Amino acid sequence: MFPGARDSREAADYAVIGAPLDISTTFRPGTRFGPRRVREAAEPFEDYDQHTGTRFTDLAVHDHGDIRPGDDAEEYLDFLRGAVAEYRDDGVVPLLLGGEHTVTVGATRALDPDVYVCLDAHLDLRESYAGNPLSHATVTSHVATQADQLVVLGARSGSESEWAHARADDTVRAVAPGEVPDWELSFEDQRVYLSVDIDAADPGFAPGTGTPEPFGLDPATMHAVVREVAPPVSGSTWWR
Amino acid sequence: MFPGARDSREAADYAVIGAPLDISTTFRPGTRFGPRRVREAAEPFEDYDQHTGTRFTDLAVHDHGDIRPGDDAEEYLDFLRGAVAEYRDDGVVPLLLGGEHTVTVGATRALDPDVYVCLDAHLDLRESYAGNPLSHATVTSHVATQADQLVVLGARSGSESEWAHARADDTVRAVAPGEVPDWELSFEDQRVYLSVDIDAADPGFAPGTGTPEPFGLDPATMHAVVREVAPPVSGSTWWR
Amino acid sequence: MFPGARDSREAADYAVIGAPLDISTTFRPGTRFGPRRVREAAEPFEDYDQHTGTRFTDLAVHDHGDIRPGDDAEEYLDFLRGAVAEYRDDGVVPLLLGGEHTVTVGATRALDPDVYVCLDAHLDLRESYAGNPLSHATVTSHVATQADQLVVLGARSGSESEWAHARADDTVRAVAPGEVPDWELSFEDQRVYLSVDIDAADPGFAPGTGTPEPFGLDPATMHAVVREVAPPVSGSTWWR
Amino acid sequence: MFPGARDSREAADYAVIGAPLDISTTFRPGTRFGPRRVREAAEPFEDYDQHTGTRFTDLAVHDHGDIRPGDDAEEYLDFLRGAVAEYRDDGVVPLLLGGEHTVTVGATRALDPDVYVCLDAHLDLRESYAGNPLSHATVTSHVATQADQLVVLGARSGSESEWAHARADDTVRAVAPGEVPDWELSFEDQRVYLSVDIDAADPGFAPGTGTPEPFGLDPATMHAVVREVAPPVSGSTWWR
Amino acid sequence: MFPGARDSREAADYAVIGAPLDISTTFRPGTRFGPRRVREAAEPFEDYDQHTGTRFTDLAVHDHGDIRPGDDAEEYLDFLRGAVAEYRDDGVVPLLLGGEHTVTVGATRALDPDVYVCLDAHLDLRESYAGNPLSHATVTSHVATQADQLVVLGARSGSESEWAHARADDTVRAVAPGEVPDWELSFEDQRVYLSVDIDAADPGFAPGTGTPEPFGLDPATMHAVVREVAPPVSGSTWWR
Amino acid sequence: MFPGARDSREAADYAVIGAPLDISTTFRPGTRFGPRRVREAAEPFEDYDQHTGTRFTDLAVHDHGDIRPGDDAEEYLDFLRGAVAEYRDDGVVPLLLGGEHTVTVGATRALDPDVYVCLDAHLDLRESYAGNPLSHATVTSHVATQADQLVVLGARSGSESEWAHARADDTVRAVAPGEVPDWELSFEDQRVYLSVDIDAADPGFAPGTGTPEPFGLDPATMHAVVREVAPPVSGSTWWR
Repeated sequence: MFPGARDSREAADYAVIGAPLDISTTFRPGTRFGPRRVREAAEPFEDYDQHTGTRFTDLAVHDHGDIRPGDDAEEYLDFLRGAVAEYRDDGVVPLLLGGEHTVTVGATRALDPDVYVCLDAHLDLRESYAGNPLSHATVTSHVATQADQLVVLGARSGSESEWAHARADDTVRAVAPGEVPDWELSFEDQRVYLSVDIDAADPGFAPGTGTPEPFGLDPATMHAVVREVAPPVSGSTWWR
Repeated sequence: MFPGARDSREAADYAVIGAPLDISTTFRPGTRFGPRRVREAAEPFEDYDQHTGTRFTDLAVHDHGDIRPGDDAEEYLDFLRGAVAEYRDDGVVPLLLGGEHTVTVGATRALDPDVYVCLDAHLDLRESYAGNPLSHATVTSHVATQADQLVVLGARSGSESEWAHARADDTVRAVAPGEVPDWELSFEDQRVYLSVDIDAADPGFAPGTGTPEPFGLDPATMHAVVREVAPPVSGSTWWR
Repeated sequence: MFPGARDSREAADYAVIGAPLDISTTFRPGTRFGPRRVREAAEPFEDYDQHTGTRFTDLAVHDHGDIRPGDDAEEYLDFLRGAVAEYRDDGVVPLLLGGEHTVTVGATRALDPDVYVCLDAHLDLRESYAGNPLSHATVTSHVATQADQLVVLGARSGSESEWAHARADDTVRAVAPGEVPDWELSFEDQRVYLSVDIDAADPGFAPGTGTPEPFGLDPATMHAVVREVAPPVSGSTWWR
Repeated sequence: MFPGARDSREAADYAVIGAPLDISTTFRPGTRFGPRRVREAAEPFEDYDQHTGTRFTDLAVHDHGDIRPGDDAEEYLDFLRGAVAEYRDDGVVPLLLGGEHTVTVGATRALDPDVYVCLDAHLDLRESYAGNPLSHATVTSHVATQADQLVVLGARSGSESEWAHARADDTVRAVAPGEVPDWELSFEDQRVYLSVDIDAADPGFAPGTGTPEPFGLDPATMHAVVREVAPPVSGSTWWR
Repeated sequence: MFPGARDSREAADYAVIGAPLDISTTFRPGTRFGPRRVREAAEPFEDYDQHTGTRFTDLAVHDHGDIRPGDDAEEYLDFLRGAVAEYRDDGVVPLLLGGEHTVTVGATRALDPDVYVCLDAHLDLRESYAGNPLSHATVTSHVATQADQLVVLGARSGSESEWAHARADDTVRAVAPGEVPDWELSFEDQRVYLSVDIDAADPGFAPGTGTPEPFGLDPATMHAVVREVAPPVSGSTWWR
Repeated sequence: MFPGARDSREAADYAVIGAPLDISTTFRPGTRFGPRRVREAAEPFEDYDQHTGTRFTDLAVHDHGDIRPGDDAEEYLDFLRGAVAEYRDDGVVPLLLGGEHTVTVGATRALDPDVYVCLDAHLDLRESYAGNPLSHATVTSHVATQADQLVVLGARSGSESEWAHARADDTVRAVAPGEVPDWELSFEDQRVYLSVDIDAADPGFAPGTGTPEPFGLDPATMHAVVREVAPPVSGSTWWR
C-alpha cells in the first residue's frame, strides 16, 4: 500500500494505481519493480507538506494495488484504460505508478486530455519501434491521437524523423534541458495529463533507468514542473 | 566474441550462438545479458583442458554473435531454428548461450533430438503460462513434441498437474537434487540435446537467476553431468 | 502479503507474522528488511509441494502483517508474545518472519515449548551482550527458561563460558556442521519450537546476514531439518 | 586513523572523534559504518588545500578513534559529552564523524554553542519520535536547550507541528534548498557549532543515507557553507 | 564494437581506440573496464544528433578494438603512440577510450598538439608519483613537453608544488568548478587535443571513478566543453 | 588492526602482516583491498575457539599493519622478504594477508620452507605471464626454488605445459577438487608454508576473486586443510 493511502475506493478522491508493465524495455529491463519501489521509497516521507499546508492523510487516497500484466501489451492497456475510466467516471483522480512508459497510453485513452505535459529524455514520437507499434518509444505518438497539445520537457533524444516531426508539428513542443521556451502556454480550462518518465532526469540522479540518456534535468527542475504545471509554462519560475 | 572462438563459419566444427531472449521472464528479468556475460566470464579461462588433454583453440569454433530478438517470441524461435538448422546441415555442432530457456525450443525444432537432458529447477511441463503458450515455463512441453526421452535433473518445482504429468508419462524422468535414479538410460546411437538452465544450481551459486528456487544442485554435480552426459545416467559417478 | 496467505484471521490454521526487529544487531544491521524480502522471495514459488502433495493455497493461512517495533525491545517482545498467544488460544500455528533472532523469545514466552530446535551458527547462551540482557546473543538463554530441551544445529561460535555451559548442561545439545550426533531425541508428545537463524547457513549461501560466521551448513541440510524435525534427531537421514 | 591525523592527543589542536551510533535510525540503518567509510574516502585526498594555502599535515590533528556505542543512547551521549568536554578544556577543536545525527547532542552539551548551523533535510524539532525522546528526529530540539540561534539549511521535511514551531520561534531559521534568506546573521563573537547531516544533500549525491529526502542541496552549496560559515549568512556568496 | 562504428580502417575518418590501461591507479582500480563499459553504455543512444543534424552512421567511424596492455607502461604508450600516429598519417581523427589517464600521453606524443584542454579534477603536474614517472598523476607534465598551452578545467586537487607550478607557469591555466576565467584563449589555427578525465565530474555523477574528488563539475558543463571547445574559452556560454 | 592482535612487536609470537599488492592481477583487480576487508570480516568473530580450547587474545599476536606497495613488484617483494625475515629471526610466526598471490614469494624467500602446501585453483607454474616473470601466475614456480615439496590442493586450471610440468616433476603434487590422493606425505620435522589463494574456493563462495575458476572447493574442505595441515595428507579426514 502507498504509505498513507488508507481510503476505500468509495471514499477516495485520488487513486494510486500500480502498472508494472515491463515488456518493451529494450536496453535494461526492470520497470516491473517500479510501483513496489516507489511505495517503499515513500515510507519515510512526512505526512505534511509545508509548501501547501496539506497533510497527505487528510486527502482521500485509495491504493488500487497493482494491475499485473500478462504477455500482451495491447490487452494490458485495455485493462488499464478500463480501470482508469471507472475512476474518472466516479470523479476520482488517477495516479499511475509505472511500469514502462507505455502505460501512459492506457491512461490517456481513458482520460482524453487537452494538454499532455511530459518529462522525458526521449521524444517517443516513433510510429513503431523494433517492429512494435506499442513500445515505450511510441508513447507520445499514441497520446497525440487524444491530446491537442504535447509538451516534452527534458527532450534530448530522438531519431531524425522524430525531430523533424517535432519541429513541423505545431502541437508538439520539445524543450531541451537548459533551454528556455519563447512561447507561453495557458492551461486554463484545459484538462492536463502530466507524465514523468524518470529518464528525463540526469542519469546521475536516476542510475537505474532503462535507457539512460546523459545530460538531463536536475531534480529541482522536475520538482518545479510537477508542482506548478497548472500556470503558463513560460513566465513561471519553474523552468530553466 | 567467445574467447578463442576464432574460426570462420566455413571452417567451424562448433558454433557459439548468442540468443539473448528476455520476453517471458516473469519474476526478475535480465536474461538478455546472458550471452554477453558468459563471454566475459570465459575470458580468464585457460585454453587447455587437463581432463581431456584438449586445447580449446585446437577446436574449430566459430562465434556467430547474437541473434537479437524483436518483440515476437514465435518469430524469434523461427529465426533461431533457421540458424541452427543451417549449422546442422553443415555438420556443425551448435552451442546456444541464452537468453531465457525458451530459446531451447528453437534449437530442438531444428535438431530433432532423441533424448533431451536438461538441468533445471522447474519441470517446465506447462501447456501455457500466464496466458502464453511460448513461455520459459513451457519449454519441456515443447521439446516433448520432438524428443522421445526427457530427463530433468535438479527438478524441484512444478504445478500439481506438471508433477502428475511427469509421473504418468514414461518418457519423462525427473530427478530431484540428492535423489539417486533407480533406472538406467543408454545414450548409445541416440542424438542427445543437453540444456542447462542456470536455476538448476542452488541460488547460492547463481544468485542472479530469474526465478530462484532454493535447495538446488551444487556446481560439481552440474559439471559432472555436462562432462559425462554420454554414458548411461545411472551407474555413472556423476549423479548424486 | 505472503503469497497465497489469503485467509482471514478467523478462518486461519496458520498465521504468518512479520517481526522486523533490528535493535541489537551488533555488526551489520538490516534485519528490519527480513519480513519484506522473505515475502518477495516467495512470490515465484509454486503453490504445490511435490514432497507432500499439498497445495499452499489449500492450507488456511493468514498474513498478520508486520508488528512494527519502537525503540524498546522488552516492550516489543511483550507485544509479540501477546499476538502469538492469541493465535495459540485460537489453535492457530504461528510462523514468525524476523527480524533479529531476539523475536524468538517473544514467541517462546507465549508457546512454552518442551523442545527448542534451532539452526544457528551461534550458541546464543550469553546472559547479556554489550550490556544488553535482551540481545540476539542471549536468545537461547531466554528460551531455556521455557523449554526442557535445547538443540542448536550448525553451532560453531560462542564464548568460552557459552561452550562450557553447553557441555555441562544436559538440556543443551550443540551440533557443529559436519558432526553426527551420538544421541537420539524423541519428539513424541512434545511441543517443539523450530527456529531458523539464517547465519546457520554458510555465508556463501546467505551473504547478507548480520554476523557472518564461516564454515556453516549447506541449504540441503537445513531443508532436511525443517522438513523432518518431527522424527528423532539421530537415526534420520536429514542430519550430516 | 584519519589520513594525516598523526599527532598525539597532547600535541593536537584538532581532534577527529568517530561516533558510530546507529540505534534510532528508523528507515535504513548503517550509520555505524560512517566513521570508517569517511576515513577511507579521505585517503586519496591531497594534503594541500589550494584555497587556504594550508597543508593538512601542518595542522596538529589527533585521531581519537571511535567511541563504540552500547545499547543505551543516553549513556552513550554522556560518554561523548565527556570526551568532547576534555578536548574543549584543553583548547582542542573536536570534529565528530557520525553515526546517526543524535551524536550532535553529546557534542553540543559539552560545547554550549551560541549559534547552531546545520545542513539537514529535516527540521528534527520533534520532542520525541517513535516513543523515543533521544532520536535522530529530535536533534534540533535538544540542541535548542543550549544554543541561542538555530539555522537549518536545506530544510525540506518536517511534521506540521515542527514547521509551526520553526515559524513561531524567532531563534529558529529554516532555509529550503533554492531559497534565499532575507535576514542577516552575524557570527562575530559567537561560538558556532556546525553540523552536516548528509541527507541535506540531494539523494542523487548521497544515495546511501538513512532517510533519503528528494530535492536537496548540491555539493557545491554544502561546500560553500562549510568553508564560509563564519561570515554573515546573508550577503555572502555561499548560499543559493 | 562501438555502436555504429561500422567502417573499415581504410574508409574511416574517425577511429575509436580502446586503451584499457590499469597499472598506476593508486586508490581504486578498474580503469581496464572503461572501453568495454563505454561501448555498452552507448548502445541505446540514438544515431541522430539534433544539435548538429548529423547521423553518427553517416560519419565514417572505425572501431580499432582494444590495445591490450602488458605490465610495462612505457612500452604500452609506445604501442599506443604508434597506433595513433598511423591514423594521424592517414588523416584519421583518433578517439581514445581509456583506461587510466596515462594513455593520453601516448596519444599526445603522436599528435603533438598546440593546445591541450582537459577536464580533470587533478592538476596531474607531478614529475613522478609513488616513485613512478609514468603515473596518472603525471599526465599533464608529460603533455607539457608537447603542447604550448595547457588548460585544466574542473581542477580542484593538487600538491603544493603542483599549484605553485600552475600559478607560475604562463602556459598552464587551471580553472576550478564554479570559477569564471578572466582570460581568453583563441583556438584558431591551433591543433587542440581534448581529454576528459571522468573524475572532473562530481562523484555523484561518476561514483565509480578511481580517485573520487568531491565538489566537481556537473555533466551539463562538461557537455558544453566537449561540444564547444573550438571557440575561445572565455566569452562562450559553456563555462560556469 | 586485526581484531585482538593487541601485542607489541617485542612481545609477539605471531605477526599479522598486510600485503596489499595489486599489480599483476590480469582479469579483475582489487586485491589491494584484501588486508582491510579481512580485518573487517574478523571483527564479529569470537575470541574463543572451541576446537582447541584457545582464546585468540591469549596468544601473543602483533599486527604489523600494511606494507604499502609502490609500482615495482620485485622491489616490493624485497621489502616483504626483509620484514618476514626479521620476524623469523625473532622466532615470530608471520601471517600474511594478501594482496595478490605474488606476495607469497616474498615470504618463502625469507622462510625457505621444506614443504609448500597451497590451496589454489591455478597451478601457477608458469615461468612468466604476459611478459612478466613476477606475476600471480608464476607463484609456484618461484616457490619451487625454495621448497622441496609442492602441494597444490583444489588445482583445476593451468596451461598445457604447466600440467606437463606438474605430472613430470615428482616434487609437485596437484590435487583437483573431489580427487582423493593415493600418496601420503609426512610433515614431521618439516618446515611447512601454507598458502591460501581464495580462488581455490568455488566462486559461489568467493565471488569477488580476481580470476574466478568454476567447480572449486567448498569452505569445509578448505577449513579442514588449514586446521590439519600438520598430519599426513592422505589418511586424514580433511581432504575430499
